[in-house]
Amino acid sequence: MRLRNVKNAEIILKNSSYFIFNPKEYLNHWKDLFNNDFPIRLEVGCGKGQFLIQMAKQNPRVNFIGLEKYASVLVRAIQNVERESLPNLKFICVDAKDLADIFNHEVELLYLNFSDPWPKKRHHKRRLTSFDFLTIYESVFQKDSHIIQKTDNSILFTSSLEDLSQFGYIFKKISLDLHQTDIPNVLTEYEQKFANRGDKIHYLEAIKEKK
Amino acid sequence: MRLRNVKNAEIILKNSSYFIFNPKEYLNHWKDLFNNDFPIRLEVGCGKGQFLIQMAKQNPRVNFIGLEKYASVLVRAIQNVERESLPNLKFICVDAKDLADIFNHEVELLYLNFSDPWPKKRHHKRRLTSFDFLTIYESVFQKDSHIIQKTDNSILFTSSLEDLSQFGYIFKKISLDLHQTDIPNVLTEYEQKFANRGDKIHYLEAIKEKK
Repeated sequence: MRLRNVKNAEIILKNSSYFIFNPKEYLNHWKDLFNNDFPIRLEVGCGKGQFLIQMAKQNPRVNFIGLEKYASVLVRAIQNVERESLPNLKFICVDAKDLADIFNHEVELLYLNFSDPWPKKRHHKRRLTSFDFLTIYESVFQKDSHIIQKTDNSILFTSSLEDLSQFGYIFKKISLDLHQTDIPNVLTEYEQKFANRGDKIHYLEAIKEKK
Repeated sequence: MRLRNVKNAEIILKNSSYFIFNPKEYLNHWKDLFNNDFPIRLEVGCGKGQFLIQMAKQNPRVNFIGLEKYASVLVRAIQNVERESLPNLKFICVDAKDLADIFNHEVELLYLNFSDPWPKKRHHKRRLTSFDFLTIYESVFQKDSHIIQKTDNSILFTSSLEDLSQFGYIFKKISLDLHQTDIPNVLTEYEQKFANRGDKIHYLEAIKEKK
């Protein structure tokens, strides 16, 4: 767990029922934690949690887990959700590259919302849709691999389209201007900011069938 | 052959060595026409021919065929090329839906440049990357199916990405702003106009391996 800038972050997190301190202990047992058979969806890079809190409210028969690398950011999500009563929502503080140690074919869908674009070519491997990450996700998905991505960054977006396609994913839906479509959408914090200044939001839904 | 607006279009076309009056006669015999083993590339909707004339000049070891539905437009291409000496370039006046009657596994690559976007949902089937057209192209391609598309229209572009992906194509390269990349590019007439007014040109290269 990385702690930056926020005092007492660890204490705030540990005291919250929304926070899972040692997620590796739940490998193969996430169903037991939620105590139901509802599908589990994961947001990689959940930031301050606005998207996932709203999704959990709207979809009580889906379990949501927010992954955030920085405890200092995750503390904000925990503070935002503390007054809510959402048994279908948990947060974990881990790096996406460790996902395979945490989930063993237990996740239905991954959300990648406004991930760091790493626009320089030499940082391609750090993008969350690079082959390295797509390979990690393979052991996370329960059945078909299923990713929904939103971004305002066209370098990340076209790189994702290429990498997902070359990895075997097929695109169910693509939009270059999500807010002009009728695709159901819950805004993230970033998305609200970008949309307010007129930026177009790019969207993709990609599926890779399990063989 | 459709004749609109241009007087004597048929006579102008028939008198040109660049024009193939009855392309169906060359089914299975396009190699004989060019009298060499160079690959054959096809532009579907070649307009006034600017792209293909330039491509033929730059690539003498590739044969190019321009397909245009409207004789009134094709006449302009013929007039533009008449002063050149390009043995590797021919034009035909046909509808893309008749392509399977003209080529029998003889084409290496299809260019779809600034095709009619048919933006209304109910006209989806008319887009040159709809399943109906992709099915026709299957009998045109020599080996792997290989399409390069350019368009300024985001509805056509995202529809093409979805349809090509779902049809089995994999994306080798995608850009939302072609002119800001180092992808080699020859401008079409439309592209020049769009670029001059600051529109972004979308680009994709898609390949479907022959099984």
